[in-house]
Amino acid sequence: MTVFADRLIHSIRAKGNPCVVGLDPRIDLMPAFIKSGRGEPTREVIRSIVTDFHELVIDAVAELVPAVKPQLAFFEQYGSAGVEAFENTTVFAKRRGLLVIADGKRNDISSTAEAYAAAFLGEADILGRTQKVFDADAATVTPYLGRDSLEPFTDVCARHGKGLFVVLKTSNPGSRDFQDQPLAATGRPLYESIAAIVHELGTSLMGESGYSSIGAVIGATFPEEGRKLRTLMPRALVLVPGYGAQGGSAESAAACFNDDGLGAVVSSSRGITYKYPSPDIPCHAFVAAVRENTLRMIDDINRALRIS
Amino acid sequence: MTVFADRLIHSIRAKGNPCVVGLDPRIDLMPAFIKSGRGEPTREVIRSIVTDFHELVIDAVAELVPAVKPQLAFFEQYGSAGVEAFENTTVFAKRRGLLVIADGKRNDISSTAEAYAAAFLGEADILGRTQKVFDADAATVTPYLGRDSLEPFTDVCARHGKGLFVVLKTSNPGSRDFQDQPLAATGRPLYESIAAIVHELGTSLMGESGYSSIGAVIGATFPEEGRKLRTLMPRALVLVPGYGAQGGSAESAAACFNDDGLGAVVSSSRGITYKYPSPDIPCHAFVAAVRENTLRMIDDINRALRIS
Repeated sequence: MTVFADRLIHSIRAKGNPCVVGLDPRIDLMPAFIKSGRGEPTREVIRSIVTDFHELVIDAVAELVPAVKPQLAFFEQYGSAGVEAFENTTVFAKRRGLLVIADGKRNDISSTAEAYAAAFLGEADILGRTQKVFDADAATVTPYLGRDSLEPFTDVCARHGKGLFVVLKTSNPGSRDFQDQPLAATGRPLYESIAAIVHELGTSLMGESGYSSIGAVIGATFPEEGRKLRTLMPRALVLVPGYGAQGGSAESAAACFNDDGLGAVVSSSRGITYKYPSPDIPCHAFVAAVRENTLRMIDDINRALRIS
Repeated sequence: MTVFADRLIHSIRAKGNPCVVGLDPRIDLMPAFIKSGRGEPTREVIRSIVTDFHELVIDAVAELVPAVKPQLAFFEQYGSAGVEAFENTTVFAKRRGLLVIADGKRNDISSTAEAYAAAFLGEADILGRTQKVFDADAATVTPYLGRDSLEPFTDVCARHGKGLFVVLKTSNPGSRDFQDQPLAATGRPLYESIAAIVHELGTSLMGESGYSSIGAVIGATFPEEGRKLRTLMPRALVLVPGYGAQGGSAESAAACFNDDGLGAVVSSSRGITYKYPSPDIPCHAFVAAVRENTLRMIDDINRALRIS
């Protein structure tokens, strides 16, 4: 079993870039051709619009990038039909050789955390049979509930060769409210204490690549914090959202990388899938736009990594 | 539109207790009769086992308690079939006059937080039509991403008369790791800073009952912290998990209430739905056990509230 960290590093090297395409289904932003002639918006219509859209996007980018990042919130806004589309999309992306990072920022305590870990990364007992459920390659989780809330996830990662990205520093202004608060005990921001735990949990899940399958989320809008966190968790893989639409530049995203040009992946969602000239765009032109947006991002990120 | 806080207070008064039945679908713990003769564990079999189980539980407790609390993690471990069962269960519970608190501890930033708020409490735009999705009465959210990550939820609560429970202090030992950390700025635990924001956000969502629709989650295992937080957010409704199976007593849960005997709800899951003598229990005896477990909890909690 090749562990997640090694699969991701291998795929980054094979594709020649660390870019991740975010999949945020927003039917209102999708081109008209994917929606027309579908009839009433039944459960099945919703599921197939969201699935078909992502299959087009995945086919357009499968040879270009190492991974996709479905954002669960946007699937859940379409109810269980959306969650079924998430299942379809995950299967399709993996079949096309892409790693899937399920961005759900889940967490809870004890057996509830175990249930989330089973759902996203492991297996559930279903009428006496052990079955994989969403079976993503990695998932995002929040740290507020404490170290023992992360351990059910790291256990599942160890058993199934999966990966975890613990949210440390997000790209929004409000990330200052609690994440940045200096603690009385250390005089350092809260996120640094969490980074220490990410680093420690990660030591038992090291890959042959020299990177750990236990990583972190650091928004692209805070390069200084990114640089500091990078040194606190030198072997953690960092997922960097916030590039593009959320205001993070390639240069600030580059702060989350190590000097070997590895150690992080940068994700963009709207800037890839919803940046095209008109809702009336035909299918082939939409696919071309997604490829162009992706190639532009790859170029931008790789250039910043060479400079930094 | 009666706001969530008033609906909950009204229902607590009408039912004469502040107990919430947690719905944690774990097929392995369910009695044999609900699973037998179902055939292969297809998507539809899973959906109907989980739905049927909860319909029995809900029918057993609908006249006894004000609310149910489905735990999303346990639904999600059965994939989109489980999420469809969550939809079915929510519809059924509301039809039986119960309030539904969706316990998903979701959160994210900006438009992603908006999507979660739309999914659980509001409406989504689906092919130009505005439609309710899960349509719970309230939801749990995590605070780590900051105040601006909570606002999309409070906005939806204001528009649709819904409620929010922000996770402050959980019942696990690891809740000490970050939640309890004294901040350099205040010398007080992190959760108190979050409580101040919960209190502040809540002032614009006050009900006629004198309680706000913006509440908090405080584990039953930490009565001292509960008492302190109660004074910091006197008008917030508190959701108190951790009673029973997780080790919290009725007396420690009572610390989260105000002197008027209101201001909190206490939830129990496994102690209600999975406490029965044998997997071979027949249907009518299972329903009786669920009722007895619920009545015992109500008695225990109400006694503690009178004493405290």
